[in-house]
Amino acid sequence: MKNFKIKLAYDGSKYKGWQVQNSTSDTIQGKLENILLKLTGSPVDVIGSGRTDAGVHAMGQIANFHIELADDMSPDQLMEYINRYLPEDIAVLSLKEVDERFHARFSANSKTYRYRIHTSKIPNVFERKYVYSYLDAKLDPDLMKEAAEHLLGKHDFKAFCGNKHMKKSTVRTLIDIKIEAIYDQYGLKEVLIDYTGDGFLQNMIRILTGTLIEVGNGRISKDAIPAILNSKDRAQAGFTAPACGLCLMDVYY
Amino acid sequence: MKNFKIKLAYDGSKYKGWQVQNSTSDTIQGKLENILLKLTGSPVDVIGSGRTDAGVHAMGQIANFHIELADDMSPDQLMEYINRYLPEDIAVLSLKEVDERFHARFSANSKTYRYRIHTSKIPNVFERKYVYSYLDAKLDPDLMKEAAEHLLGKHDFKAFCGNKHMKKSTVRTLIDIKIEAIYDQYGLKEVLIDYTGDGFLQNMIRILTGTLIEVGNGRISKDAIPAILNSKDRAQAGFTAPACGLCLMDVYY
Repeated sequence: MKNFKIKLAYDGSKYKGWQVQNSTSDTIQGKLENILLKLTGSPVDVIGSGRTDAGVHAMGQIANFHIELADDMSPDQLMEYINRYLPEDIAVLSLKEVDERFHARFSANSKTYRYRIHTSKIPNVFERKYVYSYLDAKLDPDLMKEAAEHLLGKHDFKAFCGNKHMKKSTVRTLIDIKIEAIYDQYGLKEVLIDYTGDGFLQNMIRILTGTLIEVGNGRISKDAIPAILNSKDRAQAGFTAPACGLCLMDVYY
Repeated sequence: MKNFKIKLAYDGSKYKGWQVQNSTSDTIQGKLENILLKLTGSPVDVIGSGRTDAGVHAMGQIANFHIELADDMSPDQLMEYINRYLPEDIAVLSLKEVDERFHARFSANSKTYRYRIHTSKIPNVFERKYVYSYLDAKLDPDLMKEAAEHLLGKHDFKAFCGNKHMKKSTVRTLIDIKIEAIYDQYGLKEVLIDYTGDGFLQNMIRILTGTLIEVGNGRISKDAIPAILNSKDRAQAGFTAPACGLCLMDVYY
């Protein structure tokens, strides 16, 4: 058996997220497993670096799988084979053989997700499916940056966890939050937030983003963040920003 | 009556082109005219700089229309009104009052269209609707550039006209053709062709592009271009490249 590591891009708009649920046809993992079953004749388990929610995109999801590969098929040919059968909204960007112990989830050290908030009064026609259209909203990126400082480091992020029945630890380390404001002739056009952390709870980035948006529009004080963290109460944090603005950018090993 | 000039962006994927045909609901012009009828209570003629074909996109289409505007509505408010009622794949980027003699079509001096050919073996997941996916094809951009030199200037472009029954002059001036080749780790990723001219015949850019692609893949010699022009025979030129790769970038006045 050979162990292959792949890097994937997908437009998650149409999918119920990464992980196979009941049917295999509406998840990214399911699409890949169906193609590898067809190629090898046996069920293949494709291990992702983590789940992405329904509607979330990826430019750099990492996964691995173990298969017997015929001697006359090179890794490049395997990548082309998979891409030929994948739908047009999923693509394998690279594929290579790795050590048999490599595990896309357990071996991951950290990940970067990007959240895009489109704030111009002019809708973004060509990227509308990849941004949260918060049209003509007033956001103060400087307030958002100050609030983000309070989130950095190792914290119990229970207040930012979408799963109320989470029994495992909700302690995570946010290594970096980079906020970029882009302007056009009408003012603030887009706010990009890049989150890098050692792991993320369910909906965590979307709740962090909703909270930062509410700081940016003045509904939550930037100085309220430590109290929200300490409360460990989901109701104290901001809203869950929509999935369409979120994209998994990179996984680090 | 005031004369307003607007700049428009649209994802043409779902539309039957710019110009109203039988129904008004499936063209860009029709969508705009319906909104202005609703606003003013009378039919409004929206004049585009030119038609774009079904499936063709725009980042800088220009149009104008004459309406009576209530004194308490500013041009900015008019733009916001139109954008509020437009579907998410059409947007007004700017709007201003202009001289009553301004006519989006007759006043135009020249236009730039961009054609994008995606040639990487990795599909472009996020821009798949805005490029022609000519996957893993071998194209020589230098041959295409040399062929393009023969097309510059004033010529009878009858061989590059999609309308066999064209009765008016098929003489046009191609002011500039800029070809840019973009590479990634696997080789040629994309070829961008920017065409600037004083006017374009039906399907002309798509036939020019199909011809340049056939030069790039070796099926047509770069030195055959003058003979194709002289033949005035559509059958001598290359195929009509698909609409989805084409975008109207700018109109100059």
